[in-house]
Amino acid sequence: MYSFRNDYSEGAHPQVLQALLDSNLEQTVGYGLDPYCEAARSLIRELCGAPGAGVHFFVGGTQTNLVTISALLQSYEAVIAAQTGHICVHETGAIEAAGHKVCTVPTEDGKLTPAEIENVLASHSTEHMVEPRLVYLSDSTEVGTVYTKAELVALRDCCDTHGLLLYLDGARLGSALTSPESDLTLSDLAALTDAFYIGGTKNGALFGEALVMTLPHDRFRWHMKQRGAVLAKGRLLGLQFQALLKDGLYWELARRANEMAFRLRDGLSALGCAFPLPSPTNQQFPVLPNSVVKGLQAAGYRFEVDHAEGPDQTCIRLVTSWATPEDAVNTFLQSLADCKE
Amino acid sequence: MYSFRNDYSEGAHPQVLQALLDSNLEQTVGYGLDPYCEAARSLIRELCGAPGAGVHFFVGGTQTNLVTISALLQSYEAVIAAQTGHICVHETGAIEAAGHKVCTVPTEDGKLTPAEIENVLASHSTEHMVEPRLVYLSDSTEVGTVYTKAELVALRDCCDTHGLLLYLDGARLGSALTSPESDLTLSDLAALTDAFYIGGTKNGALFGEALVMTLPHDRFRWHMKQRGAVLAKGRLLGLQFQALLKDGLYWELARRANEMAFRLRDGLSALGCAFPLPSPTNQQFPVLPNSVVKGLQAAGYRFEVDHAEGPDQTCIRLVTSWATPEDAVNTFLQSLADCKE
Amino acid sequence: MYSFRNDYSEGAHPQVLQALLDSNLEQTVGYGLDPYCEAARSLIRELCGAPGAGVHFFVGGTQTNLVTISALLQSYEAVIAAQTGHICVHETGAIEAAGHKVCTVPTEDGKLTPAEIENVLASHSTEHMVEPRLVYLSDSTEVGTVYTKAELVALRDCCDTHGLLLYLDGARLGSALTSPESDLTLSDLAALTDAFYIGGTKNGALFGEALVMTLPHDRFRWHMKQRGAVLAKGRLLGLQFQALLKDGLYWELARRANEMAFRLRDGLSALGCAFPLPSPTNQQFPVLPNSVVKGLQAAGYRFEVDHAEGPDQTCIRLVTSWATPEDAVNTFLQSLADCKE
Amino acid sequence: MYSFRNDYSEGAHPQVLQALLDSNLEQTVGYGLDPYCEAARSLIRELCGAPGAGVHFFVGGTQTNLVTISALLQSYEAVIAAQTGHICVHETGAIEAAGHKVCTVPTEDGKLTPAEIENVLASHSTEHMVEPRLVYLSDSTEVGTVYTKAELVALRDCCDTHGLLLYLDGARLGSALTSPESDLTLSDLAALTDAFYIGGTKNGALFGEALVMTLPHDRFRWHMKQRGAVLAKGRLLGLQFQALLKDGLYWELARRANEMAFRLRDGLSALGCAFPLPSPTNQQFPVLPNSVVKGLQAAGYRFEVDHAEGPDQTCIRLVTSWATPEDAVNTFLQSLADCKE
Repeated sequence: MYSFRNDYSEGAHPQVLQALLDSNLEQTVGYGLDPYCEAARSLIRELCGAPGAGVHFFVGGTQTNLVTISALLQSYEAVIAAQTGHICVHETGAIEAAGHKVCTVPTEDGKLTPAEIENVLASHSTEHMVEPRLVYLSDSTEVGTVYTKAELVALRDCCDTHGLLLYLDGARLGSALTSPESDLTLSDLAALTDAFYIGGTKNGALFGEALVMTLPHDRFRWHMKQRGAVLAKGRLLGLQFQALLKDGLYWELARRANEMAFRLRDGLSALGCAFPLPSPTNQQFPVLPNSVVKGLQAAGYRFEVDHAEGPDQTCIRLVTSWATPEDAVNTFLQSLADCKE
Repeated sequence: MYSFRNDYSEGAHPQVLQALLDSNLEQTVGYGLDPYCEAARSLIRELCGAPGAGVHFFVGGTQTNLVTISALLQSYEAVIAAQTGHICVHETGAIEAAGHKVCTVPTEDGKLTPAEIENVLASHSTEHMVEPRLVYLSDSTEVGTVYTKAELVALRDCCDTHGLLLYLDGARLGSALTSPESDLTLSDLAALTDAFYIGGTKNGALFGEALVMTLPHDRFRWHMKQRGAVLAKGRLLGLQFQALLKDGLYWELARRANEMAFRLRDGLSALGCAFPLPSPTNQQFPVLPNSVVKGLQAAGYRFEVDHAEGPDQTCIRLVTSWATPEDAVNTFLQSLADCKE
Repeated sequence: MYSFRNDYSEGAHPQVLQALLDSNLEQTVGYGLDPYCEAARSLIRELCGAPGAGVHFFVGGTQTNLVTISALLQSYEAVIAAQTGHICVHETGAIEAAGHKVCTVPTEDGKLTPAEIENVLASHSTEHMVEPRLVYLSDSTEVGTVYTKAELVALRDCCDTHGLLLYLDGARLGSALTSPESDLTLSDLAALTDAFYIGGTKNGALFGEALVMTLPHDRFRWHMKQRGAVLAKGRLLGLQFQALLKDGLYWELARRANEMAFRLRDGLSALGCAFPLPSPTNQQFPVLPNSVVKGLQAAGYRFEVDHAEGPDQTCIRLVTSWATPEDAVNTFLQSLADCKE
Repeated sequence: MYSFRNDYSEGAHPQVLQALLDSNLEQTVGYGLDPYCEAARSLIRELCGAPGAGVHFFVGGTQTNLVTISALLQSYEAVIAAQTGHICVHETGAIEAAGHKVCTVPTEDGKLTPAEIENVLASHSTEHMVEPRLVYLSDSTEVGTVYTKAELVALRDCCDTHGLLLYLDGARLGSALTSPESDLTLSDLAALTDAFYIGGTKNGALFGEALVMTLPHDRFRWHMKQRGAVLAKGRLLGLQFQALLKDGLYWELARRANEMAFRLRDGLSALGCAFPLPSPTNQQFPVLPNSVVKGLQAAGYRFEVDHAEGPDQTCIRLVTSWATPEDAVNTFLQSLADCKE
């Protein structure tokens, strides 16, 4: 049975693999200084309308977050993040291990607002407290929601007012930017954040995240290397991002992931499931009777249990990807309908 | 006018100073390995009924907390603390700077309960999350409350059940243990915690905190030295704790600080002030009309503003110490009465 | 012209790539808990004769070194390493960034001896100094030399005597173990070290290092995740190590790299070049007249300059790999002969 | 018998103690923001001819070094220090624990030269290596030697040329600046370094080091607090430095320590002892026959053994201080003469 556990259960899109095959025996210099990485950097700068941006490739998201955030902060500076933020929950305290407190904000929908940020600032005033300095956002968020351009502009204004840096975790950026509820573009992100990353692992690559950093930083590669985050055969990252971005494959794959998610959502709604956390992206959080959850698991389906909704129901997480077959969605909905009977 | 801002505005009790004077030109070895420190260690072990405990002297509380907590934890292990805990608020992220996440728990009264601890544990299960490992308590707490023996026994049981370490910040331990609401003794603390400290800075010493560690740790001094926390003329710490503890001066001073606080509390109550956070120790948190607060400040009184209680009233913090003269309390109450008229 | 700059200029051996292709659309769980990683772990344990060993897969060598060493040490504990060790020179202070001093030992040949280790220990005695605790070796070393079994047994004995951990960096382990001067096997390494890794990046993989840890450590994955060192599609690592190790491809490739290196060495010797650092592995360090070095560079050859040998000569580094064509070696030797004329 | 083990065996000079006594029951604000610290800051700025310098008080030298160095460096930046430097030997890897590599330079006399610094720089070029950024000097050095103004000017020039910071550990600055071989003043140090400290612990204070930082840093107190290096009753530090510096007591005490050392040196020379490490300050390193060393120890004298000079002789360290009585020196010389017979 198909697994809806996450969006990294399969390998890479065939065009991405082909790029690795085609160049396999070619010799290049290491550590991301090769022509493929350079070409991918140029392409990304162009897509972002940010000719001067630094572009750095990483193997995974936790690595990207920890290297970037620690490179941007002094030891007494802290991060402001939504309580559901990936760095707060699922990165084993990597930011704290790098020495920085994360000031967490409880939110309804996984999104931060200027008012919440200013609230945190108001309680940090002297050298007895950390100094909040960087705002961490995820788009899409860990609960599937997305930021609008107006929201991001307001956050940027707030950051400018208070001398804060703005960083956006784009592990699921493809799904976010192709969401019907998003009006953001790569250029907007480059213009409005100090740094953000384009997630490849969850959208067609074997692995890889492309950090776009508009804030100048001439020693960033020192930070990367010190954290063990420079891939010897760095071209593998450049090659993959070239393949994904040069003809829009990245957006096509993200759109497909979203479509599969919406098909799931619509089918589940039709079957009477509630969605207390509505999501316009590739993660869906339906509430199901416990018996149905057990039935689906018994049938071999795989997915994460998010939380209990009272004694009899469970909110689960279903994740789709570019690789999710339409058939798998249909079969799942049929199985669910069978369980509910 | 007298300052009620904190309990470290003055120097040391004269008997403590005398001990420094008497030994001033004597030669001893450095770094806390001298006969005075040894004698103070023996005395503390005896008072704690803990003949095998490690006793280590520090210059201040933040230093004690950061060295001890970081010495007890592996990098992926985290602390559980009340949101009001000193390490969460007023230590500039020292614990995070040492690499550890602090999982904070909102509380009514600054005190942790087993249920709250288990709640934190329930949301930490795999290698994608930190592993909560040490429970941080303060006694008295940052809002003036104290733990009872029954509460501490329950916390110890909870820690034993879940393999957690229990550490108690005793910056205001004198005030706590001499509080009418406390039935705890030094022996209880030694028996029920893995480590705790007896605060000297806020109760009669020029400076100094005595860490009592029942958990064996044969390299603790390496941690201390690496953090710059070993005083060259370490005997200054031993001498002060000897002077404070050998004839009960420590308890006498703490009792006096509490008495002055209760006199303040009773006087303020009589004048109609509310105490939404009732405290049985040397910190009192009365709510006053804003005009009265301003009047007292204008009159030259010094104290911390804790928070606004609605638009017209303010909760302030008044702290007394062993050095607070009864006259200062009386004068303050009179000034307050004048302001209220 | 061929580049002899390093052994990671090309991609992966075709059989390795094929394994990725064959499994590409299969769904597996993430983070190295999939069946391919499990199978690779079993295979490695078997090859090592170490059924109880922990086996962990990493993307690169610096990452492996920093996660493993920091997981094994307390903050006051230090590493002993040869001055040429990779962690001392080419990892941007990653070990120090993780909090640990590296006590470096100057050596002739990149190899540590028990006497040198004991020398370091003799100068570290109290809490005012770090406590050396882990010995870091590389095999082959950064200057191409290898350890014999007798040497490694002596180092193990030394470590046992002094309570030290023994860790071996196997970035070029294939080249070392297939060297005519080595009598070591994987089983020997598992028996004699506390942890070592089998380097994939430099011997046939796209990327990947397999850490074998005989020292028990039940929270190692927490350390990995906290450092951003867990690959989402972890199976990519398991698949590659399976392909390399199941039928001995790993050794075949390493042997070929060595053969190409020896062909270079013999050809260079025949042309009169000296080798002050004789190497029985895939890195060769010939001394050439400066004019020859410039001629080769002008002809388009790529290699590292190691150091100047007096005013007129230069010691260069030539590295071969499984992918080095025999023709490239012959052409290079011919070009060199031409330059010398 | 008198101990020549170090210069912190006794308490404080009586005038320093008197300052503490005189102000004991006065109330001041905490954390070094009180009028006494402000006055001491003004005085120090005036003595240094550095009206804009930051002046920060610490309790001890290791703490001063670790807070200052870590506040001045990014994580990938390293320190250059003589191998005998206090931070390399006797601070339990505190600098590395704060994340920074220390590049050590072997020296004859404990002093660094521009050539040695440039040598270190020459071997650090890319992001695979740390970036040396701060030069650490001690004056007097750990082997008793001092820098001349010409030497310090040359080091400053070297630092300017290469964009390096210059930091000087003044644990024994009094002894250095009053040495007959020194032509440096506080003003020179303020003009030529980015930061240095005036050591109090080893020259008349109970404890205390005054950091003078001409490099602007508006968040230095955040670093201090995060490392637990802000004394609650901070005025104790200001009071002591006022007492020491306002009428030149500091220099008087240092001069006396040097005089006692020279008396020892001259007496020992007269008795035929060699001084392979000649020192113009309060640490003297005579070479004695092993039998004499044992004889002095048996007679109850205390001192550090520095190293063996061949099988029959030992180089010991004798340290004098402001508190060393002339009689103690004479008696020691007599005892030594007796042992030699």
